Amino acid sequence: MEKEEYQDQVEGRNAVIELLESGRDINKILIAKGEKHGSIHKIIGIAKERKILLTEIERKKLNQIAQTQNHQGVIAIVPPFSYCEVEDILKFAKQKEEPPFILILDGIEDPHNLGSIIRTAETAGVHGIIIPKRRSACVNSTVSKTSAGAVEYMKIARVNNLNETIRFLKEEGLWICGTDMNTDIEYTKQDYKMPIAIVIGSEGFGISRLVKENCDFLVKIPMKGKITSLNASVSAGIIMYEVVKQRK
Amino acid sequence: MEKEEYQDQVEGRNAVIELLESGRDINKILIAKGEKHGSIHKIIGIAKERKILLTEIERKKLNQIAQTQNHQGVIAIVPPFSYCEVEDILKFAKQKEEPPFILILDGIEDPHNLGSIIRTAETAGVHGIIIPKRRSACVNSTVSKTSAGAVEYMKIARVNNLNETIRFLKEEGLWICGTDMNTDIEYTKQDYKMPIAIVIGSEGFGISRLVKENCDFLVKIPMKGKITSLNASVSAGIIMYEVVKQRK
Repeated sequence: MEKEEYQDQVEGRNAVIELLESGRDINKILIAKGEKHGSIHKIIGIAKERKILLTEIERKKLNQIAQTQNHQGVIAIVPPFSYCEVEDILKFAKQKEEPPFILILDGIEDPHNLGSIIRTAETAGVHGIIIPKRRSACVNSTVSKTSAGAVEYMKIARVNNLNETIRFLKEEGLWICGTDMNTDIEYTKQDYKMPIAIVIGSEGFGISRLVKENCDFLVKIPMKGKITSLNASVSAGIIMYEVVKQRK
Repeated sequence: MEKEEYQDQVEGRNAVIELLESGRDINKILIAKGEKHGSIHKIIGIAKERKILLTEIERKKLNQIAQTQNHQGVIAIVPPFSYCEVEDILKFAKQKEEPPFILILDGIEDPHNLGSIIRTAETAGVHGIIIPKRRSACVNSTVSKTSAGAVEYMKIARVNNLNETIRFLKEEGLWICGTDMNTDIEYTKQDYKMPIAIVIGSEGFGISRLVKENCDFLVKIPMKGKITSLNASVSAGIIMYEVVKQRK
């Protein structure tokens, strides 16, 4: 298991101030000994107010713990992101009395793309996101930052096998919609009012073969120029908002 | 004037290989003396085939020229991006016998966002993009890379004063559509079939006050969750594809 499954850390003065202001849980904040100047005072002030444990340690030790070179003498240790179960996402949709609207991300490895997709999903009213354990970025501090804090409000499930999950979702009455350049159906011609899970593939390779075979239908975004693909977070946004529009 | 207006450089083995394969103009390629191993041979091979000037220089000198720390002994010098005039964009729309479809970017400072917007604009059939000279990223190698090469096919004009340009576009019969959270009109309720320029604001501050006042109408993307804004390149993508849909 990777380190980041156990804990995550946020490094640098501005990043830690943003984190403190977001109200997110923080296990403790490490500060370099004897370097309490400038915005460090602000960090100490907010941390004390929020009753967060502050520990002073030697600069050398802090350098060893740091994952980046820009920690500026401050590192916050935060609890790992808590993933949910796929069932929790379906329950949430039921609670809201809406037909499920789920996103399945097949191999989004860039944390900036993952964060941006989570952000759009939150604004589009997606009930939850499903990512695989392998070949995918997991929710870390980069993802959290790029999501503009949306990770705090979004249910995200991490599964061993996307195809098994797709089978389960089909049994639960969901339709699985894949995105693929090589299909004839434009995304605007498809009905998304029924319970649905939309699969977004990786930038480089699209949706994997087996997952594509398990989709009930495939849709494409029309491309009018010479470039043949969109950024994954942009195409996800375009399709999510088509669902929003149709469901109004 | 900034350095990057005169020339731009692409650094690192993979980046230079991608550049060589894109067919884009290259002034020359600098290679560290005595370090011809691995993929450097591939670079030399393609460069010779394309008759591009190769210069060997001392590693120390190369380090001084480098803008990043990851040049791996190879730097390609490329001509600066050649911007067009606003008139060229209008002419291009006329040639295509389409009502103009222009994007105005008001303060997009993140080169990744600029690149991603250019990429989507190219696939959506936008005729050209207008950016201001100040408070905006300009087209450099990061933008080019994030655009997946779309900068090569997109007309981009850089203007001194967006408000003067907007006045000119209005005289030319275009409608100016701004994006703003605090308006009542949802983007899907608006007609985009007429000649149009869509203004996308910066992530942090939105469209500047004066530009907003000069817009003919403002539209918003509905937000159903707790997060109140989208990534600029995602919201630009959603609106551009609504135009594509309506114009079909």
